[in-house]
Amino acid sequence: MLSKSQIKHIAALKLKKFREEHSQFIAEGHKLVMDLVNSEFSVAGIFASSGWILSNLLQTGERKIPVFETLPQEMKRMSGLSTPSPVLAVVNIPGPNPSPLGGELGRDSLVLALDDIRDPGNLGTIIRIADWFGIGLVLCSESCVDTYNPKVVQATMGSIARVKVVRCNLAEALSTLSGSTTPSGSPTPSGCIGGFPVYGAFLEGDPLFSQTLSHHGVIVIGNESHGISPELVPLITRKLFIPSFGTAASGKAESLNASIATAILCAEFRRKTIAD
Amino acid sequence: MLSKSQIKHIAALKLKKFREEHSQFIAEGHKLVMDLVNSEFSVAGIFASSGWILSNLLQTGERKIPVFETLPQEMKRMSGLSTPSPVLAVVNIPGPNPSPLGGELGRDSLVLALDDIRDPGNLGTIIRIADWFGIGLVLCSESCVDTYNPKVVQATMGSIARVKVVRCNLAEALSTLSGSTTPSGSPTPSGCIGGFPVYGAFLEGDPLFSQTLSHHGVIVIGNESHGISPELVPLITRKLFIPSFGTAASGKAESLNASIATAILCAEFRRKTIAD
Repeated sequence: MLSKSQIKHIAALKLKKFREEHSQFIAEGHKLVMDLVNSEFSVAGIFASSGWILSNLLQTGERKIPVFETLPQEMKRMSGLSTPSPVLAVVNIPGPNPSPLGGELGRDSLVLALDDIRDPGNLGTIIRIADWFGIGLVLCSESCVDTYNPKVVQATMGSIARVKVVRCNLAEALSTLSGSTTPSGSPTPSGCIGGFPVYGAFLEGDPLFSQTLSHHGVIVIGNESHGISPELVPLITRKLFIPSFGTAASGKAESLNASIATAILCAEFRRKTIAD
Repeated sequence: MLSKSQIKHIAALKLKKFREEHSQFIAEGHKLVMDLVNSEFSVAGIFASSGWILSNLLQTGERKIPVFETLPQEMKRMSGLSTPSPVLAVVNIPGPNPSPLGGELGRDSLVLALDDIRDPGNLGTIIRIADWFGIGLVLCSESCVDTYNPKVVQATMGSIARVKVVRCNLAEALSTLSGSTTPSGSPTPSGCIGGFPVYGAFLEGDPLFSQTLSHHGVIVIGNESHGISPELVPLITRKLFIPSFGTAASGKAESLNASIATAILCAEFRRKTIAD
């Protein structure tokens, strides 16, 4: 049986304020919890039914993770799901990375840069798309929805355990990646990363399917309603749009959802990488 | 000022039971309402702020739609949104179509067939994707979430006004479209539609990007957790999968969200249509 203060602490992690205060977030469901257990994340504790605990003793024991038997009515009070799962993990939020853009980007690396994505479902789905297409780094503007919002975490379906999500000043990050300037604005010293073309998703520009696309680059995705911020537009070297179909008479959709546009762009970059 | 019974009637349309009883659904927000006003749907009434009514007199008047001035506190009681819009429409659900598959399908027609899509956001997003890619017909299995669920309607972002969504027995519809049998199971009479290849999204099969795809066909998308039902699998002539990328060491996403997979498939069919 859990203490009242344990239950209160975990339930409070649904709120950003408490996640920031305690540097912890919650993840629910067997797959998501096990993906996090088997990742570089540090899992502070697992709260689960006795049945779940028995079936997963080996893996949680190996990692020396504290496990707490949890009754259904306790889970209900902590869970953010309408139908709680038998398992919930409290996970430590990793500290800031001293060189988030350094070292890991190779010649075939794609990076996603999300400018003011506000919908938790979109952010989680985009992290899952990145994982599917082997994109290891997702940059988020400071104004994006919190990465550790429970709805984001759940929508990643475990991909949050494998994709590095870095919150940063996007203008500085794009300048660094494209190699025009260092974050401080001075010219890039030799040896620094750079030379990444910066692609952006727009409602006008070069039609996606007929373009030559590089194997590496940054793909910028804008806000659900307002697209890419005006201050980032000058940093984009190639404006891409996804061609629509349909007859003028009946009108047509004005845009695609942000995560849908991301998926189509990532698929096309990877298709061209295979084809080349 | 609205009557209590008007407010109660409209608020009740959030529930499937009342939508079916009254054959009506609600749509909120300027774009969605105007898309429906300018479509074949019959709009039973518009409930809006005085400001909205003044700005849109011409279009609502032309269509002879009853308009009711609505106070913010009244809107709050009827709306399904956390931040209500200044306009809400009550729309009549169209009656069953006597020949839903007839007449409108040409040589370049793609049809989407959704097998047991349960998430309202997914269904709405898929209808929006269909609209973007000029797909005029979406078939839904009887077990799919209700097309007129407010979350579905809102997620279509107006595309529900342009895409025909037909609820039917998918096995019968696929047989009819592929032309192997009529709905009753007897051989297809000449003149009946048919000859549509039936593609399905699977986690294994032919890799999407390297396949020859026809300009016309049915694309079957399965349930979010369980994929395509076993009884539909024999009706599928081409199993397609979306190739994933990434290193085995870190694991990878097990699947893509249903609406994401739909988008990548539709984009690739249309890309090949342009390229041919």
